[in-house]
Amino acid sequence: MVLSRKVNFSAGPSTMPKKILEQIRDEIVDFRGEGLSIIEASHRSKVYDDIHSEAISLLREIYKIPEDFEVLLLQGGASLQFAMVPMNLYRGGKVEFVDSGSWSSKAIKEAKIQNINFETIASSKETSYDRIPENIEFSDDLDYAYITSNNTIYGTEYREFPETKSPLVVDASSDILSYQVDWSRVDLLFAGAQKNAGVAGVTVVVAKRELIERESSKTPIILRYKTHLDKNSLYNTPPVFAIYTLNLILNWIKSIGGVDEVHRRNHQKAKLIYDTIDSSGGFYVGHADKSSRSLMNVTFNIKNGDGSNNSELEAKFIKEATKLGMVGLKGHRSIGGLRASLYNAMDIDGVKQLTQFMDNFKSKNL
Amino acid sequence: MVLSRKVNFSAGPSTMPKKILEQIRDEIVDFRGEGLSIIEASHRSKVYDDIHSEAISLLREIYKIPEDFEVLLLQGGASLQFAMVPMNLYRGGKVEFVDSGSWSSKAIKEAKIQNINFETIASSKETSYDRIPENIEFSDDLDYAYITSNNTIYGTEYREFPETKSPLVVDASSDILSYQVDWSRVDLLFAGAQKNAGVAGVTVVVAKRELIERESSKTPIILRYKTHLDKNSLYNTPPVFAIYTLNLILNWIKSIGGVDEVHRRNHQKAKLIYDTIDSSGGFYVGHADKSSRSLMNVTFNIKNGDGSNNSELEAKFIKEATKLGMVGLKGHRSIGGLRASLYNAMDIDGVKQLTQFMDNFKSKNL
Repeated sequence: MVLSRKVNFSAGPSTMPKKILEQIRDEIVDFRGEGLSIIEASHRSKVYDDIHSEAISLLREIYKIPEDFEVLLLQGGASLQFAMVPMNLYRGGKVEFVDSGSWSSKAIKEAKIQNINFETIASSKETSYDRIPENIEFSDDLDYAYITSNNTIYGTEYREFPETKSPLVVDASSDILSYQVDWSRVDLLFAGAQKNAGVAGVTVVVAKRELIERESSKTPIILRYKTHLDKNSLYNTPPVFAIYTLNLILNWIKSIGGVDEVHRRNHQKAKLIYDTIDSSGGFYVGHADKSSRSLMNVTFNIKNGDGSNNSELEAKFIKEATKLGMVGLKGHRSIGGLRASLYNAMDIDGVKQLTQFMDNFKSKNL
Repeated sequence: MVLSRKVNFSAGPSTMPKKILEQIRDEIVDFRGEGLSIIEASHRSKVYDDIHSEAISLLREIYKIPEDFEVLLLQGGASLQFAMVPMNLYRGGKVEFVDSGSWSSKAIKEAKIQNINFETIASSKETSYDRIPENIEFSDDLDYAYITSNNTIYGTEYREFPETKSPLVVDASSDILSYQVDWSRVDLLFAGAQKNAGVAGVTVVVAKRELIERESSKTPIILRYKTHLDKNSLYNTPPVFAIYTLNLILNWIKSIGGVDEVHRRNHQKAKLIYDTIDSSGGFYVGHADKSSRSLMNVTFNIKNGDGSNNSELEAKFIKEATKLGMVGLKGHRSIGGLRASLYNAMDIDGVKQLTQFMDNFKSKNL
């Protein structure tokens, strides 16, 4: 029995639209009168194939993916993409990275192991990754350029992707489908699904066909994009439930007005919290520089009069919020403090509940 | 609304215990009073961690996994293991394979790409993989020896694993948890979960600690067993729903009497069909040699008087069975004919329904 549903600010896996959970509930024993569950259906059956195809074509539609791009549905999370991208895209030339936080750093670490010729051309490490590095200028003739569009831990996000003549690879794990991508600037975009695109277990890759149809004979077959391209992501058994859930999410986005409407709501939600922070007279202070504030993850601290972090009050904040049913507000251990993740499925009422609590908490503890 | 539940003989993904589907239905909106779904829970939260830990410890318990073995829960299916096994276990020595069908062949193909020194010491390819090769003798000093314990496409299965002084790697994707493994003969066993261990999206690896704690600095971090060993399979976001379902399956196996009871039932179910085949006077003929018959996948043909396959009657068989609610009976395209997959979750009533139909169909079409 649902006594009361939590308001879930977790950074991922994260909150889902309740309507979708209810649809899963209603369909999981008998999938739309088929006499079996979608998780029991052969991945070669029509019942599964319809879901698989619909997910891909809906993604193309609502994300306005150009004709010369392909969609792959893979496994292994973004962490496997950190290894697959250099395996598939490196041609003995050069790669340049922007280091905007832990996920970029992990991608760089995997690239290093593959002994590729690379350079980190910009980093905000020295200011605790509080911003997206400015004035990014990639070289023109790279095998690829690499960025992380949103940084969950630090709460920073690109306003627009850098222009470059080199193929641009974007790790969009934490902001996929939250705004319309300018595909003229992107050549390969990947994302683990568990924040904005459903549940953990499927990785979405959107890439220019010409970039992924070249294959290296030295790369394991299962790790070649071309393998999955040739088989429409059915080379081996796909993660059925995760793709089914992705499809539900895509239908939901379409039903509420598409990616632009989602973006409008995300703006509105984030503004509520940032305004609460900025009008708190220094009680709450955001971690991210205003130029780089993420619409997905709002990171902030509670400050002492002298500007230092008040970790005691932060702990109290989390404790009291939890009592009120608001969970997942603890900041990542690497920067501490507080974090509210506002992915697509977080509704405005949940955010208002949080900002009201923030105001009350400030009044009581100032 | 469930009008009538299909009897699902699919080779994988495949039938699940209805009780488990109902439990998922009951828990998916609100997980045991937590106020959120398990698929929304952070993988660093207690609510998820309890499931993750229980799955690992239950697997150890019901599968009687020795102390010096570790359990990993990975992504990417068995197909990724075909690449990960040589990446992690090859030390510049030699590897020997037994080729008992398509899955072995795929594993060999991936190993070849990694340029390892290997030999296929036994194969049943010449007899259409109708049996497990006999008198397998691996060399003593291999980096590892490799077998596929059950062959879904051909319907063959090892009675016991070969003895060898070399580390033995077993792809048990299609018969994991269907009988008690003799761990004294196995060093690494892996399986995609979608046949006997839940849903597609999680791969179970059970391995001797000393075999997987060595790591190669040239292997991508995400593809090292050691990475996942060190982080208790939480290096990156795990496939939460698939591990939740694995845990439900493990609880179910325990509740019905454990792996030995499952094995007893599997014997009983397979015997019903093999007896029907053998007593059909040559109308039905099994593909697998009797010495190697699988308890998981029963492959057979309908024969003409001259011993050739009657593909017309086979098509009619499938059509009529489908009308009666029995699905997934079409043989794999590589050998054609018919196949009934009898994984752990297939109950005896479903099998009886099939054998009665087989008898009736024979009478009418003899």
